Order: sequence, then structure tokens, then C-alpha cells
Amino acid sequence: MSKKLNVIGTPIPKIDAGIRITGKAVYGQDVKLPGMLHGAILRAEYPCAEFTIDVSAARKLPGVIAVITADDIDCNNISYKKDHPILKKGEVNCIRDEIAAVAAESKEIAERAIKLIKVKYKEKKGIYDPFDALKPNAPLVNKYLKDSKFAKNISDIFFYEHGNLEEQKKKSAVIISKRFVLPRVTHCCMATSNITADYSSVTKRLTLYSSTQVPFLYQRDMAHALKMNASDIRVIQVVIGGGFGSKLDMYPFEPIAAILSIKTGKPVQIIFDREEEFIASPTRQNMVIDLIAGADKNGKFTFRDVTIVKDNGAFTSWGATTPFVMMQTFSSLYQMPACRFESKAVYTNNISAGSFRGYGNPQAAFAIESCIDLMADKLGMDKAEIRLLNANYAGEITGQGMHYDTCGHIEALKTVIEKSDLRNTNKETLRNTNKYESTNKEKETVNTDSYIRKNPYFVDNVDRYKRGVGIASMMHVGGGAKIYRSDGCGTTLKLDDYGHLTLITGSSEIGQGSETVLAMMASEELTIPMNKIKVINTDTDVKPWDVGVHASRTSFVAGNSVLGAVKKLKEKLNQKAAVLLKCTIENLIYENEEIKNSDGSNSVRIEKVVREMHFGGQNELCTVNHFYEPTSDFQDKQFKGNVSGTYAFAAQSAEVEVDTYTGNIKVLNIHVAQDVGKVLNPLNIMGQIEGGVLTGVGYGISEELIMENGRVLNPNFHNYKMLTASDVPDIHFYPIETNDSLGPYGAKGMAEAPLIPTAAAIANAVADAIGVRIYSLPITPEKVLKAIKEKTD
Amino acid sequence: MSKKLNVIGTPIPKIDAGIRITGKAVYGQDVKLPGMLHGAILRAEYPCAEFTIDVSAARKLPGVIAVITADDIDCNNISYKKDHPILKKGEVNCIRDEIAAVAAESKEIAERAIKLIKVKYKEKKGIYDPFDALKPNAPLVNKYLKDSKFAKNISDIFFYEHGNLEEQKKKSAVIISKRFVLPRVTHCCMATSNITADYSSVTKRLTLYSSTQVPFLYQRDMAHALKMNASDIRVIQVVIGGGFGSKLDMYPFEPIAAILSIKTGKPVQIIFDREEEFIASPTRQNMVIDLIAGADKNGKFTFRDVTIVKDNGAFTSWGATTPFVMMQTFSSLYQMPACRFESKAVYTNNISAGSFRGYGNPQAAFAIESCIDLMADKLGMDKAEIRLLNANYAGEITGQGMHYDTCGHIEALKTVIEKSDLRNTNKETLRNTNKYESTNKEKETVNTDSYIRKNPYFVDNVDRYKRGVGIASMMHVGGGAKIYRSDGCGTTLKLDDYGHLTLITGSSEIGQGSETVLAMMASEELTIPMNKIKVINTDTDVKPWDVGVHASRTSFVAGNSVLGAVKKLKEKLNQKAAVLLKCTIENLIYENEEIKNSDGSNSVRIEKVVREMHFGGQNELCTVNHFYEPTSDFQDKQFKGNVSGTYAFAAQSAEVEVDTYTGNIKVLNIHVAQDVGKVLNPLNIMGQIEGGVLTGVGYGISEELIMENGRVLNPNFHNYKMLTASDVPDIHFYPIETNDSLGPYGAKGMAEAPLIPTAAAIANAVADAIGVRIYSLPITPEKVLKAIKEKTD
Repeated sequence: MSKKLNVIGTPIPKIDAGIRITGKAVYGQDVKLPGMLHGAILRAEYPCAEFTIDVSAARKLPGVIAVITADDIDCNNISYKKDHPILKKGEVNCIRDEIAAVAAESKEIAERAIKLIKVKYKEKKGIYDPFDALKPNAPLVNKYLKDSKFAKNISDIFFYEHGNLEEQKKKSAVIISKRFVLPRVTHCCMATSNITADYSSVTKRLTLYSSTQVPFLYQRDMAHALKMNASDIRVIQVVIGGGFGSKLDMYPFEPIAAILSIKTGKPVQIIFDREEEFIASPTRQNMVIDLIAGADKNGKFTFRDVTIVKDNGAFTSWGATTPFVMMQTFSSLYQMPACRFESKAVYTNNISAGSFRGYGNPQAAFAIESCIDLMADKLGMDKAEIRLLNANYAGEITGQGMHYDTCGHIEALKTVIEKSDLRNTNKETLRNTNKYESTNKEKETVNTDSYIRKNPYFVDNVDRYKRGVGIASMMHVGGGAKIYRSDGCGTTLKLDDYGHLTLITGSSEIGQGSETVLAMMASEELTIPMNKIKVINTDTDVKPWDVGVHASRTSFVAGNSVLGAVKKLKEKLNQKAAVLLKCTIENLIYENEEIKNSDGSNSVRIEKVVREMHFGGQNELCTVNHFYEPTSDFQDKQFKGNVSGTYAFAAQSAEVEVDTYTGNIKVLNIHVAQDVGKVLNPLNIMGQIEGGVLTGVGYGISEELIMENGRVLNPNFHNYKMLTASDVPDIHFYPIETNDSLGPYGAKGMAEAPLIPTAAAIANAVADAIGVRIYSLPITPEKVLKAIKEKTD
Repeated sequence: MSKKLNVIGTPIPKIDAGIRITGKAVYGQDVKLPGMLHGAILRAEYPCAEFTIDVSAARKLPGVIAVITADDIDCNNISYKKDHPILKKGEVNCIRDEIAAVAAESKEIAERAIKLIKVKYKEKKGIYDPFDALKPNAPLVNKYLKDSKFAKNISDIFFYEHGNLEEQKKKSAVIISKRFVLPRVTHCCMATSNITADYSSVTKRLTLYSSTQVPFLYQRDMAHALKMNASDIRVIQVVIGGGFGSKLDMYPFEPIAAILSIKTGKPVQIIFDREEEFIASPTRQNMVIDLIAGADKNGKFTFRDVTIVKDNGAFTSWGATTPFVMMQTFSSLYQMPACRFESKAVYTNNISAGSFRGYGNPQAAFAIESCIDLMADKLGMDKAEIRLLNANYAGEITGQGMHYDTCGHIEALKTVIEKSDLRNTNKETLRNTNKYESTNKEKETVNTDSYIRKNPYFVDNVDRYKRGVGIASMMHVGGGAKIYRSDGCGTTLKLDDYGHLTLITGSSEIGQGSETVLAMMASEELTIPMNKIKVINTDTDVKPWDVGVHASRTSFVAGNSVLGAVKKLKEKLNQKAAVLLKCTIENLIYENEEIKNSDGSNSVRIEKVVREMHFGGQNELCTVNHFYEPTSDFQDKQFKGNVSGTYAFAAQSAEVEVDTYTGNIKVLNIHVAQDVGKVLNPLNIMGQIEGGVLTGVGYGISEELIMENGRVLNPNFHNYKMLTASDVPDIHFYPIETNDSLGPYGAKGMAEAPLIPTAAAIANAVADAIGVRIYSLPITPEKVLKAIKEKTD
């Protein structure tokens, strides 16, 4: 019997909503320190070139306090592979490359100084296609990668297998072999990249006002870069205007600001403008996935054989480790007897990717779910049926060793199948409105449209508007991911004499609403109202360790840490309460900020208990610490093991209408059924679902950071096509509560999931609508028209 | 056998010295918040008057955002006795009275608006002498004091007695009865009073950037004033530019700033200018002490009978409780068979006193030590001998119930007696230089000096320069003072993966160097170097509770709290270290950031132990909390009990040279022998000694805030005579280490002590020099000349 919950599960607005909407939130852009200087960075003019640099004119500009080049610094390389110099010396390898930086009294002076720096380039032929980089005669792109065990221009290889692939191939009645091409997209955080570095020559300590989502790893990475001790770096997280994984890595501009502060003895702030943000902030991994997948005659999946080539760009980021996550999806989304997975991250002279919400899984889902539809078609099976037949189930231990103790996959699939009426879709009734229906009248109008007439892909013999439904699933870690030696989170609780609680959590708020959910948990357990709970979570000097925001882990890991701390706090309170209530310590009841004896006949206010402890002779404070470490495993060298405390599952169906005249796709409805374990805060969860789905829709149909010969062609919101309000489909969310035994209140991580299957579902819906499949994202109007043309040709 | 200390006892500069001297310290004056408004306060023009007020013109001034009077606010009265309205309505009772306040876009506009406020006064006859206020027909000064059990115009009465006064009187061979008059002096903090209040209409929380020295009491007091919940008030302490007790009370300007912030929704800053600081910040209690004291024929003290009338001013402050401390000195400094003590705090229309370093004891010492010299003279005893005969001793339990477990009184006396060669003083050899000696040549010069000739007090038949030596003692709480229900302090220690320590202490740094000493203790115990220890101590949301800076308690109470926390931390570390070192948990040795087994043959770095705990399966953080409460007693209603964890003793001798032509006193040497228990940091302790002594010298010979008919006559440094560099005597410090069993490393509180006996010793030295005694402080040239004149007349 589960106890009645009063706070958990109720729609509570984010506790930081108020400061955000009233403009009181201090974003990185709002940080102003006394005597602060402004930094600017000079980047490469060519994506592959040798260069010489002369900064003398910049140094002479009044108001310029420092100009640095690679010659002026003594730093370690940064990045996951330590293959990335902070400032580049003599040669540039991508258009983003930092070659000099300025600190000046104003941003304007800094920018003027940048323009005064004279650089002579000798352009070289770059490599912009990873397959070219793998050719034997290709030049070496990154010379900084040390002790690589891989072939030239390969940054990293992930290899995984389980089961007997050959045997499973023999069992297969159908084998699909397809190549999928995934684009570069970028996070488009509303707050551009920013840092304010404040080095004290007195204390020799560096304070960073940073947007990092992993402050303790960032502290360590920064220390390595600057050859400092990590503890001499204090990271104060500003209010973060969008993270989505982009703040998992540290980027050169951050140590550059620190170096400028160290050199000048003043605070230095660097803020990207939007164009710089598009060029010099990370992207999702663009890649080519070759997937061979089989099923037997009954539709049971037999194997997956995956080969991935990822464009690593000129330097490596955490994004290079996305195969770690992708392989889990290839090996373990749907029951999978055998899997072989190989991915190569290949250096090119392109800009490099970083980590991005979903961490490879949107790419994997697109390949897997497209193949499933193709198999169903070949086997003549229902697309819902084949998925249900192969769906993951509670109690399953996958080939990779992941334990699905709870699993809402089947229920998620059933829900979206039913809600989107997938099996009996009357494609004309997907939407109640007739607005987009193809009528004769409209056709007449179209006939007068000269643009359509000129369109070479225009096909006259079909109805203009075609509707389709597609479905896709996803599996993602739901209880952290032990990729670092600790995946835990610390909590300190301080209950004061007035019954108000300070909750100091190691975890970070990056807009996902974690601080609200953590406060709700404390509120639920202690019956202290939300407005009496303060969350402290931005200062590494103060907060206990946490690995950071990634892997949808915060509610699960930090939540369990809060619950552990609350348990200790209650043990403290109960001892005193039992004395005050003259009862045994067992079965004390917390209600309305009171502690009651087991039959409720006697009660004492919590604050009174605190005061009695503090002032009543015992003289103790109600402060406790707790550290929670998930019970997950560090996977072995073969990547096997139960990497997460629990796993999240979801299915989505997309209903689309394709304009066959223009190739435009209108996403009408997205039905989301997701195993969230338990809904902790419906408002918050809906925010995550909506945000995720929209990112997924953009990934599916419109967003792409287009590069040509190493240059970004669309570094602005005019040409980089984010969704706007008019593009937003109706989003229907059906939470599935599997009440995970390890999750706080049964909850699982849920934040990355909503975007993972969306593009895949849309791709399937488009294929359903137009009868032809597109194998690369985004599914642009051009691709749609081309596909229709090729089909009809 | 005590262990060898490596950090404690060594001269380590204050850890905040660097930011202070490089201008990086953020004083209240340096706080700048976005959108911040500037506040100004209109005060009374008359010390006693009725008034009507019209703020309409001020409200209309462009840039003025809010103007408030008593009519615009709904607040509780403030002060220890809750007798002080934040804004006064209809009548003013002292020249400091706040009657309106403005918040405006700039300080200039705020001040212009203040000038536009029209006030019509009807002046009334005020009471400026507390003895007048006690007359039956005196008008009532303060009508706000509720439920007083005292007669009209009495704010508070402290009455104490022990022993049989009548019996002791009979035993007395000598009885001295004298009146001592003590002046108003003020703290003269280099940073004037300041506050920045930032109320959020979104969170309904108030953040105060404050210089308070008692943040948790301040939070409570502010909450009471504003009718808020204390926990909704976050106190962030700025770097404090001088406290000395002045920041123990909350003053009207502080809630005024908060109210202006609440009304405007913007941060509001109020900063006093120097004149305002002189008029509207607190003073030391001016008072009249009538002391009757006796000794038997052998010089053994028999009794003290003390009656004090304190000028309370128009409102009551914590300063009204100084008799609580003074009575301890009257009852228990020197062995004392009987004591009767009564003090009345009496309302007048003067400005009110606050608390000030020493808390009544400089006043008490002056009276007591003057009387001792008088007794010695009457008995024909040596002034050193009579003191040694009566000195306190270790093991003594005083009439008031205080336990002197350790006591350096005798040793302190002996030290200054010896060092100043009190018994055999060759008054001509007090200083090596002859510069100030009265020679015939000089006399001739003097004869031509028209100023001296005109001086009515000039006496021709004595040598111009007279030297004297005086001695005085003090006793003060040295282990906190349980005047609040808890006198404890909390500590949280967070040891990170790199072996650096965050020390979160409830205690406050107000310049006394406490954070340095606390870090030294942690450094000593853990062998972690000072530069790897960060002290967090400024934010009530973050730091654990502490009663605040008063009663010289921080090193003792917060220090013991740190040591308790360190013990817990070591217990945690030892468990893991024993496993790593494959040895038993007993007798582990900490050395050079390592933990070693008992024979030192095997060792592991502390940071490695932390990382093994964090990452090595156990998954725990090294974070601990501790709360230390001194074992002292809450005194009973008769003020009896062991109020402090330990007691500090000191003796000082002053060597002076009096210019009998001008009356000027030159203090040549101050010898300070003080029972500090243990010297924790010689640099820090010397800073406290020097600062204290100089405050004491100023109190003795130059400082007085002069009031006439309720007005301050010298509100500036030109007329308020602080010591300057040329007035500084040679200060000789002889620490006495009694190694108190309860003190951290044996240390006692020592911060207030150095100023307590100084003025008393100087007064005795002056009497010794000129052969006539002055019974009021400061001993100005006028008083000296007058005394010489009266003596010779």
C-alpha cells in the first residue's frame, strides 16, 4: 500500500519561474563585477590553413588590457580526448579555431582590437567528409591526440556485440540493410555562451560565473587546462538560459576568459553573439548509420548489425561518447537476440559536435524504427503488431546486461497505437478541422500558382495533401548512467528554528525544474510547504559533489539523495519528538508541519522540535548530509553491465500531413506515451515533454546547421530553421507509471526521452503518407518532393 | 603531554588581508545591485518636540520612487525592549529620531527630496540628565515601553548581591566612597553604517546585505519588525569595516531600507555619511558609578557597593544590558566577600547607547581600580601588593558562581608589575629618551611662551613634565556568555576529492580574524595547508546557526565547534584509511596531508582516502556537521551561575608623562599581560591587543562625543578626538598561557580584554604623576590643569 501523496504528483510551478519572468534572474549576461573587462576571440578565417599572426596593433589600442595568442599561454589541451589546444598555434583546422583573444575595457574596444590583429593565412585543402578522412592517403587532421590505438584520423571506436549474428541471420526471413544520414543540428540556447572569470592574485583562486551543467567535472577540466588545483577554482552557476547537453563540455572560450583574468588581474567576461553561437557552440553528432536488421517469418527480430561513421570535426568532445548510449539502444531497444555495433568518430576539418539531449538516441531511433517499418512492409505485418511482438518487458535482462526491472514499453506502444488509432487510421479524420484538406476548389487555386507550376518535382496526378501516421519507440537510461567513477549526488539539509528548510543539493538546475522537484520531495516527506524550502545549488564551494546534469539523472539520483537526507533528518527529529510527545519513536506521523504520535492524539510542530533540540539542553542543530550513489554498475570492457538504476521507455506516434505540391510537412499531432515511473510534477513533466517533442520535430523536418567546405552557411535564425509557434503540433501526453522500486516515489528519469523517438515517428508518418521513405534528416520539402518524383518516375 | 603544534601558535596573516589591502573586499558601500535605489532618512531637528509633516513636495520630485513616514508603515517597534518605533509619529524624543525616508534613483535626488519635506515642530523642554529624569515630576520620555515593572523613565534595573555587606563593612579598616563619571564615546568604524535591502515580490523573500555581527539574531529582529517570518529573510554579511559591538543591535535605518525595498520592489541602499554616523550610530554607555569599596587592615578587600545610573537615551539598546557584565566585574574581579550592585538605565532625550567592545567593563575597571589605589594610599600599602593580595586564582568559585578553572590574574599582575618596574619606578627613566625631560633650558624656553603664560591653570612651582605609572586589571568572559538560550555555533566541513576543505561556520568575521583562526585549527588537525581551506561564513541560508559575535566568544565557541567537526571528519577518514593502510583504526597519524599507521611505516594521502570513499564502491562524501554548545549555565534570576565556558584575566600598566603646563598626557608605554589561555595566532592576537589598547587610550584621555541639550556638538573627526599615529604608545604584550581545559588548544576569548583596563591604568598613572586623581573620563588637559590647580590652591 502506498501512502497518499500530497505534494508529489501535483502541478507546482517551478520555484524559479518568478525570477525568470520578472527579469530578476541573473543569467551570465547579467553578471557585472567591479572593474570587469570584456573579452573577444579571433577565430580562423579558413577551415584549414597555416598562419602567422601579429597582434602588435591590437595591443596598442587604448583600452586594450591584454592580447593573447598561443605563444602567451602555458596550458594543457582540453576535451574528452585532450586533443584540443585552447589557442591554436601556426595552423587552424576548423573555422571555429581560436587563434587570439583580447581583454579590453569595453566590448566595443575588444571587438575593434580583434579587427586590428593581422593574420596571414596559407590555405590548405581540408577534409570535410569523414569517409575521405579514412582514406589511406588522407592528411592527418588532428595532431594532438596522444597514444591513440586507432588508425589515422580516428578519434574513437566503440565496438560491441552480443549473441550469434550469423545464426540469427540464418533465422531471418527478412533482412533490411539501409544507410541513414543524420544532420548537424545545434542547441539554439536562448542565452548565448557566456563566462565571467574572476581570478584573485591575492588568494590565487579563480571564480567562474559559468553556465556549465556539470560544475564539478568542469572545475576539474578547467584545472587541468590551466594547470591549477581544481579546488582553487570556484564555479558559481548563473541562471542557465538553455543547456540541453551543450554545457557538458568545456570550450576554449572558458579557459581563455580565465587566462585573460589571470593576466589582467581583473574579472573578464566573454559573451557570444548569435552568429558566434551558431559557429562556435557544439552540435548534435552528424553521422552515417549503416544498419542491417533482420526478423524471422513471424516478425520476431533476429539481429542488428550497425556500422556508424561519425563526423568528429577537428577536435573531440563528449559527443564522441554518444555511441556508448546508442549501442544500448541498438542492443536493447526491443528484444534483440544478437547485435554487433561499431562506430568510428572520424576527424575532419568541420566544426566539432558536442553532447545534445538524447545523446545519440534520436539518431539510433531513426535508423531502428525506419527499418522496423520496412520489415513490417516486407513481412506484410501490421506496424503496431510487429512492435508489440518485439517490445521490451519487465524482468527482461538484455543481451548487454541491462535489467529492465520495470518496463512500460508495451503499455507505451499500446497507448499511442490506440490514441492515434494507428491500425484504423482514417487519414481524412486525423484532425477535426478540414482546413488542410485537399479540395477541388483548392486545386483550382493551386493551378493558378505559378510557383507550383515551375516546381520540377510537382506531380499532378496525386491529391495535394497526404496524411500519414508513424510510430517509434525509445529506451534510455532512467536512473543515471555510471560512466564516471561515481554517479552519485550529495545533499545537505538544514532545518532552521522557524521550521524552514535549506536544501543544499549537489545537482544543478539548468531549466529542467530539478530544484522544484527536489523541494517537492522534501516538502512531501516533511510536510513543510514549498515556500518554506530554499534550494541552494549553484556554488561548488558550498554544495556537495554531484556528477552533473546528464543522462536524465537528476530527479532519480538527486531525488534519492534528498530522500536519504530526509530520512536522516527525520531520525533526528523523531528522537526529540518522541520525548516531547511522550511516545515511542515508531510510527510517528508527519502532517501539516507537525509530528504526531501514532494515533494522532498528540502533536508538536516541527519547528518546536527543532527549537527544543537547539535550545532545550540537548543543543543540537537539525543539519544532515547524505550521499546517494545508484546501485548501477560500471560496465565492463565489453560494455556489458547494468549501467543505470532503471530504464525509461516511450513510444510516440506522429500524425503528419504532407503538402505534395510544396513538400512541406505539417505535423498535426504527436502522441507521447512514456514510462516515467511516476509523475512527480505534471506541470514540469509537461514542460519537458513539450520541449523535447518540439526539438524532435525540428530535428525531423526543419533544423540543420549546413556546412560546406568547412564553413557554416546558415549561422542565424533566418536560415537555421527552428520551429515557430505556428509549427507546433498538438502534443498529447500519456504518462505511464510503472513505479520503479529504486526511483524516488517510483519515478524514472524522463527529460531526454521525449525528443528521442519524435523524428523517427515523423519519418515513418511521412513514408506512410507519401508511400516513399526518406533516409536522411531533416525531411525537408526538397527531399519530400524529390522522393515523390523518384517514386513516380 | 601536549602534542607539537605546527599551525596553531604561528604568525599567519589573516586570510582576508589580501582582498582588503588590494581593494577587492566588498564592503557594504561596494554593493551594487541592478536597478538599485538609494535611500535617505530625515531626522529630527529638535531633541524633544511635537511635529507635523508634509512630504508631498518630496514625492513629486522626479526620480523619487517612494517617500515614507510613520503613517505609511505597519511595523513593530524594535530594540531589546521593543520601545523604539522605526519611524516616529507626531513627536520626536532625540535628535537622531527618524521621521521620514526616501528612496530615489540616486543619492543626490534622495537627499534633495529629504530637503523638500516640510516639518513643523513645536519644541518641548527635554530631559538631558538622567538624574532629572528620575525626579517625580519629570515628563515621560519613552511612552512605548510596555509592561514595565520599573518606575517612570527607567528602562531597566539590574540588581545583584552576594555576601553580607554589613558584616564586611564592619571588618573594613578603610572604606572608599567615590563617584565616577564615564563619557559617551563612539565606535568610529571606518565604514559608516550601511544596508542594502532587496525584497523580491516574487518569492516574498527579503535579502539583506548587512554589516550585522549577529546575523541570526538580526534575521529574527528584522522579521519581528517587519512582521515577516524570520526564515524569509536572508542575511548576507558584507565585509565589515569595523564592528566593535556597534553591529549587535539593529537600528531603524535597516528596517527602513527593507520597507523601501518592499514598497518599491527594487533594491534600496542606505549609507550614512560621517556626520550621520556620529549622530545616529550607537555609543558606549555613559554613566555615573557610585562605588563604595572596603578593605580590612591587611588590605584584603571586604565589599563593594555599587550604584549606577546610566543615561539610556530616548530608546533602549542591547547597551542597556551592560550591567549584566559589569556586575560580574564588581562581584568577581579580585576576591570579593560581598557585593551589592544596582544599576538603572534611565530614559533621557539624549541619543541612545549601544553595545561596545568591553560591554561596561572599561567603566567598571575605572571605578574599581581607582578605588584600589585610593585604598592602598590610605592603608599605606604598595599598589602592586594590594592587588596581588586580592587577585583571583585558579580554582576560585566567585560569589556570583563563576568557576575560575584556570586563572592568570596573579601572573598577569606580576608580569606588568615587573615589566613596568612599578615598585621601584625611577620616574625619570621610564623612557630612554630625554626628549620630554624638563630641563632648565626648556624652562627658559617656556618662559617666553605666551600661551603658557596666559594659561590660568599654569603652576610655576613644579617641574613641567611629571611621570607616573598606573596599574589595572580586568576579568571578562572568555568562553562565550550564555545570555541567549543557546550560545553555540554550528560547523559544516566538506572535504573534497582534491583534499581541499570547505569550512562552513555559523560564526561571523568582523575583522577580528576569526575565520583565519578557525581555518588554522582545521589545518592543524588535518595537516591540510591554509591555502587549501576555504571559509564560508556570510550567508544565513547556507551557514549553520551561531549566536553571533559578542562576548569575545568566537575563537572559543566556533573554534570548539570546528574541532568537534574535525573529530567527526577524522572518524570518517580513519575508517577508510585503516582499510587502505591495512591497520587498526587506533593511533592513526595525520602528517603533511597524509594519514599514517601508528609506526609511520605506511601512509596514504588524505585526498586519496576521500576519493576512495567517494569512488571506491563505498560512495560516500566527506561532509560532516557539528554543533558546539559551551557547558556554561544560563544564570538564575539572581544572576548567579557559571555564565561562561571560561574566564579571561588581564593586567595592564600604563606609563604616562603629564605636561603640567598644558595638561596634555603623553602615554609612553602600555604593558599588557593577558591570560589568553593559549596564543592561537600571535599576529592576530597582537592586532587585537594593539587595537584594544588604542581604543582604551582614547577612552582614557581624548575621546568623548559631547552632547549639550540633546545635540551632538562634535560630530566629526576634527572635534571628536581619536588617537592619531603620533599618540600611539609603545605597547608591550606578554601573553599568559593557562591552557584552559575547555578552550580550543587551551585558548580563551581575548578580543575585548585589551581595552578594558587601559583607561583605568592611565587614570592611576596620571594620579601617580600629578598627585591628584581625576574621577571622570576622558582625562582631558582641562581636567588635568584644573586638578593640579585645585590641589595646589
